[in-house]
Amino acid sequence: MSEPLGRRPRADSKTRKPREERWIELREVAAQIFFEKGYEAASLQDIADRLGILKGSLYYYIQSKEDLLFAVVSEVHAEGLAIITGLAEGEGTPLERLERVLIGHVEHECRNLLSTAVFLHEMKALSAERQMEILGEGHPYLSVFRRLVEEAIAAGEARSELDPALATLSILGSTNWVYRWFQPSGRASARRVAAQIAEQSVLGIATAKGAKARAKRSSA
Amino acid sequence: MSEPLGRRPRADSKTRKPREERWIELREVAAQIFFEKGYEAASLQDIADRLGILKGSLYYYIQSKEDLLFAVVSEVHAEGLAIITGLAEGEGTPLERLERVLIGHVEHECRNLLSTAVFLHEMKALSAERQMEILGEGHPYLSVFRRLVEEAIAAGEARSELDPALATLSILGSTNWVYRWFQPSGRASARRVAAQIAEQSVLGIATAKGAKARAKRSSA
Repeated sequence: MSEPLGRRPRADSKTRKPREERWIELREVAAQIFFEKGYEAASLQDIADRLGILKGSLYYYIQSKEDLLFAVVSEVHAEGLAIITGLAEGEGTPLERLERVLIGHVEHECRNLLSTAVFLHEMKALSAERQMEILGEGHPYLSVFRRLVEEAIAAGEARSELDPALATLSILGSTNWVYRWFQPSGRASARRVAAQIAEQSVLGIATAKGAKARAKRSSA
Repeated sequence: MSEPLGRRPRADSKTRKPREERWIELREVAAQIFFEKGYEAASLQDIADRLGILKGSLYYYIQSKEDLLFAVVSEVHAEGLAIITGLAEGEGTPLERLERVLIGHVEHECRNLLSTAVFLHEMKALSAERQMEILGEGHPYLSVFRRLVEEAIAAGEARSELDPALATLSILGSTNWVYRWFQPSGRASARRVAAQIAEQSVLGIATAKGAKARAKRSSA
């Protein structure tokens, strides 16, 4: 279906796309520079130089270096959170859904290595208000994992003697760590990496019953 | 047994201890400052200010900021490696020894949160030669874990369909991640945290046979 011509914002549509493209490129380059030099040592001048534009042109998109950090980390966080929230709400037992959530999380991370690194290393450089704007009161990512761990315990799929908070942090660690070593052009694909880490994670907390039901599902 | 008085380096022994104490304190403060500001942004002036001494006095111990980073990261690495190497060479099946190694690693990390963080975030700021001096050709930490994973697979205690390299990196992630969230004064002790993460890690790779033998050992 095409938009009625009369309502099309024509003058705008000519300039908007390149502007959006430049804004995407700016965030990518900012993630690179923040990753390479660290946020504190990186300057807007470094970013402008890498883009081959004047530093003054950056102020069309942002007012400060912190705006750029906020854009990078809030985007990667919101995107990953949308993916795992969707997967957590799917069909299946809690352990099944947890495994799918972990696969989705690791695959997203493998597609966004630099911005994940910046999120994990530089979040603390944002003002408390902006950290709150991204993370809210809790840690929404961790909460999705934790709710599934608790549901799996309640369903008898995960061991009841586990401390659910520790179990969740242990799983978060093995999945988050991927940004440190994953090579997109390496021997193991993102899909393979995600599948094995998710499998180790769920079997690490599963009861014998939970593990058996999982094996039955995979061989079905 | 006491040293023969005549051979005692008396003049030296009066000054040596305070000097060594100051050197320990200097490394602790350097780890703090590198952690807080990031290595690149931190200055020797920041470190001298925190210690309440003149910047010039630092040159008694080091020649450059990089010397200090090297001291911090090489020490925490060498100490941790000595612990896990000793545990890896102990008695028991490969999976048993892997579990003990992981406990030792996490407990050491919990005792050295700041220097672990600096090791994990700032190692890349060292010259290639100095990184090599610490890590050698491979990654000695990872090699200890990996050898035990491979031995456990060979012994039928861990699943043969696992990719040993990925299995090891997944385990390394959940154990290393601890530096990001562990609170020495928190609800869970280092011992409790280490025990549960090590348990999840080994059960995450164990065969049914390996898990059963482990349960038998723990209940014995």
